[in-house]
Amino acid sequence: MAHDAPLSPLAPSTTPEIEPLDGVRFAAGAAGIRYAGRTDVMLAVMDEGATVAGVFTKSKCPSAPVDWCRARLKGGKAKALLVNSGNANAFTGKTGAEQVKFSAKLAAAATGARENQIFLASTGVIGEPLDASKFEGVLDDLVKQARADAWQDAARAIMTTDTFPKLATRKATIGGVEVTISGMAKGAGMIAPDMATMLSFVFTDAPIAAEALQAMLSKSVQRSFNAITVDSDTSTSDTLLLFATGAAKKRGAPKIEKATDKRLLEFKQALDAVLLDLAHQVVKDGEGARKFVEVTVTGADSAKAAKKIALSIANSPLVKTAVAGEDANWGRIVMAVGKAGERADRDKLAIWFGGARVAFKGLRDPDYNEQEVSDIMKRQEIVINVDLGLGEGAATVWTCDLTKEYVAINGDYRS
Amino acid sequence: MAHDAPLSPLAPSTTPEIEPLDGVRFAAGAAGIRYAGRTDVMLAVMDEGATVAGVFTKSKCPSAPVDWCRARLKGGKAKALLVNSGNANAFTGKTGAEQVKFSAKLAAAATGARENQIFLASTGVIGEPLDASKFEGVLDDLVKQARADAWQDAARAIMTTDTFPKLATRKATIGGVEVTISGMAKGAGMIAPDMATMLSFVFTDAPIAAEALQAMLSKSVQRSFNAITVDSDTSTSDTLLLFATGAAKKRGAPKIEKATDKRLLEFKQALDAVLLDLAHQVVKDGEGARKFVEVTVTGADSAKAAKKIALSIANSPLVKTAVAGEDANWGRIVMAVGKAGERADRDKLAIWFGGARVAFKGLRDPDYNEQEVSDIMKRQEIVINVDLGLGEGAATVWTCDLTKEYVAINGDYRS
Repeated sequence: MAHDAPLSPLAPSTTPEIEPLDGVRFAAGAAGIRYAGRTDVMLAVMDEGATVAGVFTKSKCPSAPVDWCRARLKGGKAKALLVNSGNANAFTGKTGAEQVKFSAKLAAAATGARENQIFLASTGVIGEPLDASKFEGVLDDLVKQARADAWQDAARAIMTTDTFPKLATRKATIGGVEVTISGMAKGAGMIAPDMATMLSFVFTDAPIAAEALQAMLSKSVQRSFNAITVDSDTSTSDTLLLFATGAAKKRGAPKIEKATDKRLLEFKQALDAVLLDLAHQVVKDGEGARKFVEVTVTGADSAKAAKKIALSIANSPLVKTAVAGEDANWGRIVMAVGKAGERADRDKLAIWFGGARVAFKGLRDPDYNEQEVSDIMKRQEIVINVDLGLGEGAATVWTCDLTKEYVAINGDYRS
Repeated sequence: MAHDAPLSPLAPSTTPEIEPLDGVRFAAGAAGIRYAGRTDVMLAVMDEGATVAGVFTKSKCPSAPVDWCRARLKGGKAKALLVNSGNANAFTGKTGAEQVKFSAKLAAAATGARENQIFLASTGVIGEPLDASKFEGVLDDLVKQARADAWQDAARAIMTTDTFPKLATRKATIGGVEVTISGMAKGAGMIAPDMATMLSFVFTDAPIAAEALQAMLSKSVQRSFNAITVDSDTSTSDTLLLFATGAAKKRGAPKIEKATDKRLLEFKQALDAVLLDLAHQVVKDGEGARKFVEVTVTGADSAKAAKKIALSIANSPLVKTAVAGEDANWGRIVMAVGKAGERADRDKLAIWFGGARVAFKGLRDPDYNEQEVSDIMKRQEIVINVDLGLGEGAATVWTCDLTKEYVAINGDYRS
């Protein structure tokens, strides 16, 4: 079972303390979805309601809860979020959609909300019917127990093969009033017969209209959750929701209607920071990960081209096994640049590992120092820079190494 | 060193005997490029000349020999092929191009050909300058020693981390005259700091014009070498050359000018068979491979969509580790279909492992028999079928499983 896995060597040394955020309460419970002896259901209650924005997996075979949330986003209003681990409710056909509706009905009844104000996410096994009646016994209690300071409990209840709970928080001011953005995520994990799944839920007390929230979230995700990869496999369940309770309005924060509002400057930076922090934690808990890898591509024809090349490097099994082997194998970087399909000129290419240039103008760098680079590759965080020498396009993505433990976690559990 | 690796468990039980093919002679020698105690240079001499066609890596950072061959193809005529293992002459800048030209000059002098009738390929380390003067000492001897029956020696000299030589042969008739197509390949291999590299050289005695040869090769490769993947990483050096010596003309074979010539029907089938045979051998010698996997996608919107989905499945680390773990993890197949980006309807999807249907109409198959499927997954050859239920598009691709040995081969050699 996943939870017996040792703590990732890349785990942060301390879990951040998350202060209560006005307007949202959390509770975790054990509904017996799949696991024994742990919590597997998380309820977030926004008693006064919240505006909401979301981004979801681009999979053409999304899970039933993803379908549900996408449709509910149009309303732009949320009163509760119900999440379970242990069962992804994906590839469960009509039954899956029915169980989603039933879950929403139960959560609506327990919280006094309308069904279309209930947001849902599930993570775990694929292809197993989810029995939503299991929520029936726990929901009323969860609503009663929900506390503003139960962030840790909530973050733990949504874990699957994660080895540590993922939390992040930042502050910003809007119109001179301090607001908070805090969030949680679960990362890449596998539960037979499941796959990597990423869920993240972020909350703010800032009073921001759903449309503005959505615009900021869609932009911010490009440089955080959409810029990480563990194994290039996209889940059917990826869900990132951002809720704004607006409770800071009572403290004088102005209500913001447009994402272009100048007063959002600090908020946007804080949102970027929270999402990036959580995204990095997801990578650092990647299956079998022993090294955290940052790949920055500059000098590309466009930012889009730069990101495609950076992801080609970050997803390459040969690059990732080289990092695992602490081998400054820049030939494989050249290979990954070449296969990305974007314009590249090998005679203008330069490559750095940890700031040491290893290749320059299509040749091994004349000043290449084997010992220096070898020491760099022993680090726990590896920075790879590639300059294409063509244009102004730049992008950074993050990944982890590919180790035998990854294969063991994903291939050995039945043998 | 790669050659100490144990024979792939998927290796064919016998190496095919390749009969002499009129018009081409082979020799292998030890030029000391990198390896000790083995051959590392292969020369094929076509004394009367040959027409030639080729397909190459789509990498934007191709090796110097790839550049050379691409340019030479325009002439459509070949007299010799010089291949070395141990050094890929990739990412070697101007020096690389100069060494290629020097190699061609040496081979031209030794064989009495013009430089632009010399074809070249290199496989091995990236970023190390290739010292072509090493060919100088061996080329005259190789020309003298070259024999029509030295196929095995030739196939061994081009190996890097391959665990067995790859040869295939088929016969066909053109205008009632028997002709032969025989070829060799080297597969996925890694030599520090190198990457997977695929080379294949195919010869026929049929008298076929270069243009017709190119049209047939470009088509045939789509269903063979372009339909296999070991780890999704595209080499800078991939080279497939097809030479037609035309020697069968002396036995009455008609000279063929157009690929649309009806008399090529059998020849095309034989060419397809040779390329597919070699391509399968490359997969069966994939690094760390223990299982050979065939993925067929049907019912897609188009053949192109089917192939994209099939490759998404075949390249998915989570699918490949599941196969390694003998786990019929169809949830991961759904994931890989979903991430391919082509139209899919989860409620029409059906999935089979080894002929046993495991998922149907967006649900686990009601007749799913755990024991039956578990036995199927223990086989050495795994067949995965996916029907999308949308259209007539179909495609088949081949891959191997992803094992801890793959990570070890590519990540451990420096540690």
